[in-house]
Amino acid sequence: MSRMQFEIIARDKKTKARIFKFKTIKTPFFMPVATKATGKFYDSNDMKKIKVKAIIANALLLSLEPSAAVIKSLGGIHRFMNFKGIIFTDSGGFQMYSEHLFLGINENGIRFRNPFTGQRILCTPEKDMQIQLDIASDVAMCLDDMPLYPAKKERLIQSVKRTIAWAIRCKRYHDKHNNINQLLFGIVQGGTDNSLRKICAKKLSTLKFPGYAIGGLAIGEPENLMWQATKVTLKYIPEKTPKYLMGLGKPYQLLKAISLGIDIFDSRYPTKTARHNQVFTFSDGTLKLQRKIYKDDKNPIDKTCNCPVCQNYSRAYLHHLIKIKEPNVKRLLSLHNLYFYQRLMEKAQESIPESIDHIINIFLPSHIMQVMDTIIENSKDPHLVEKARLNKMTWSYKSGRKI
Amino acid sequence: MSRMQFEIIARDKKTKARIFKFKTIKTPFFMPVATKATGKFYDSNDMKKIKVKAIIANALLLSLEPSAAVIKSLGGIHRFMNFKGIIFTDSGGFQMYSEHLFLGINENGIRFRNPFTGQRILCTPEKDMQIQLDIASDVAMCLDDMPLYPAKKERLIQSVKRTIAWAIRCKRYHDKHNNINQLLFGIVQGGTDNSLRKICAKKLSTLKFPGYAIGGLAIGEPENLMWQATKVTLKYIPEKTPKYLMGLGKPYQLLKAISLGIDIFDSRYPTKTARHNQVFTFSDGTLKLQRKIYKDDKNPIDKTCNCPVCQNYSRAYLHHLIKIKEPNVKRLLSLHNLYFYQRLMEKAQESIPESIDHIINIFLPSHIMQVMDTIIENSKDPHLVEKARLNKMTWSYKSGRKI
Repeated sequence: MSRMQFEIIARDKKTKARIFKFKTIKTPFFMPVATKATGKFYDSNDMKKIKVKAIIANALLLSLEPSAAVIKSLGGIHRFMNFKGIIFTDSGGFQMYSEHLFLGINENGIRFRNPFTGQRILCTPEKDMQIQLDIASDVAMCLDDMPLYPAKKERLIQSVKRTIAWAIRCKRYHDKHNNINQLLFGIVQGGTDNSLRKICAKKLSTLKFPGYAIGGLAIGEPENLMWQATKVTLKYIPEKTPKYLMGLGKPYQLLKAISLGIDIFDSRYPTKTARHNQVFTFSDGTLKLQRKIYKDDKNPIDKTCNCPVCQNYSRAYLHHLIKIKEPNVKRLLSLHNLYFYQRLMEKAQESIPESIDHIINIFLPSHIMQVMDTIIENSKDPHLVEKARLNKMTWSYKSGRKI
Repeated sequence: MSRMQFEIIARDKKTKARIFKFKTIKTPFFMPVATKATGKFYDSNDMKKIKVKAIIANALLLSLEPSAAVIKSLGGIHRFMNFKGIIFTDSGGFQMYSEHLFLGINENGIRFRNPFTGQRILCTPEKDMQIQLDIASDVAMCLDDMPLYPAKKERLIQSVKRTIAWAIRCKRYHDKHNNINQLLFGIVQGGTDNSLRKICAKKLSTLKFPGYAIGGLAIGEPENLMWQATKVTLKYIPEKTPKYLMGLGKPYQLLKAISLGIDIFDSRYPTKTARHNQVFTFSDGTLKLQRKIYKDDKNPIDKTCNCPVCQNYSRAYLHHLIKIKEPNVKRLLSLHNLYFYQRLMEKAQESIPESIDHIINIFLPSHIMQVMDTIIENSKDPHLVEKARLNKMTWSYKSGRKI
């Protein structure tokens, strides 16, 4: 039974955090985004070197280019992109976000325009399942209807109804045609509406998916509403299945979500920030390497880090690459940040048998520092800036950390 | 004595090809261009993996950003960019080509504009030597005056006079301040004018440089004139010193130059072509990977190649990366092409004790094929295209190679 593939092997003493074993890997894990079967600015060989264990690709986009048929003929996505870890495929529901692709939606499916050929295509739950089976990922995701934020109640109701109806169709088709032992996860929608989250979660629970994703969050809603919606959803889906909070996020958010019972993550955040020259460290918080202070800084990004970037280059050299606009620096900083995320997940795994609270407390100050820095840099209200400066000093003092 | 650092260890039986030993490496060698202390789209760690043994950086450009002082304070260019092989630095004479940088020239030196600060700077032979000593490359190049092609006789005469005068000033300064055992190579100018090449070569010979470069070629002049100028120059500089033909070139050109007595090369050609999706192979000639025929081609670029790209990815996957405009494919194809150049130099070294003629004969057909392909694709003269097609068939038949 595919449902048994995720097995709980440890639980946190103080929070809802836990560790699942799944094939060769353990939760909590973070998946770099490899939408089109590649990282952006880095390749599968790089991912192997920074010990990435799982990634998420996008079924819809791969069906447009190079096509599910080509990937199938080349032996599936693992072979195609030469990645031996776990591969999730997202369905394409998220691409409703793309003005470039999205045409419309009705009960039957989602209409997209193929940007390579101009052709209109209708993505139905059944077609989407077949694409994911052809691509042969390890975990497929149901086709869902994801409204943008903010959405009216009416639109959210429609989305939940459709997401449930499509989940049923996906499950039926997938059960019938799954001859590759692929897992299918359900996706709970409902925006930040607690009652709709509850309805959607309860209904999908009856379908007994081997894992559940929480979709439609981390798309611009206030953070407190996101946590509320997450908690409600978690309450109404089977506790003993792995939970995937789609699209999250920042280091501190990952730790908090783990403490609530989330096991799996994906986000563009670490690579998007890297492409803007921002890097995460355990030694010195977040650094912006374009800053002049790094021009002759002999240190690696993070002296506690074993990634191929910290092992080879100084902050001064990376600063130089940024200054001369060498495109490859986007690759180097992406690799460092992804390695940081892997280490963060390792630290979470190591702490769970005792309690993840401890490492959250380490991260809380750096998270707050980051928020304060954003205010200091961007706010035009001198009063607010002054308050942020004071706040920063207080936290710095409390935590004994360098600013 | 620094002049003895290059030692001849083998000579070709039929041509003027030879093998020098220099520190840990052997000639003939090819230097990827790392103008600003980095490859374009690839890093030093990549170069280590594809066994690049020598590179050339640019003293003038590095003195603008991050500055010779910063590189010196970080322990020299080897440490700065983390490259343990041989590093040549070009002087900056070549940047007279850059409309963006070049302001003017007189007997005292070359005037440039620093694009980072807008500041005007005067690059004198003495300053240029000090920059290269601060950067601490293994081989420094004299500051030369390189006219664009085509140039009038008058301009060539001026260039030769100035190049000689500056070589004297460079040598004097370098001899006095060289406390890092850096070698200084002279550069012979003279365009495609045989008598001027002779004058320049003879005069520089009297200065007893440990090695000589042939500059001002491979800049758009007809190929036969380039070979003629090369031969004349070689005739008038000491045979037992290493010779560096700056800016060459294509695989076949490298082999031909080696047979004439050239030992060292640098060129953007392998990486520039890679960035345009063109790759070199020993198995199938030159491939343009954007072509539709590669969409589901399971083979690596070259099945005889051990580079990290051929070891990991299929032509189909690389074609996909090109199709979706993934920037990292420029890195992958650059690595393959540079590895191809390393292999080409290895093959040359292996053949020299017998004769390099053999591998030139292997390459001649593929070189001709490439020329014919260019005609077939670009010419609007149907008669010429037909002739190229016939020529291609004949060569294909003669050499027993696939078209």
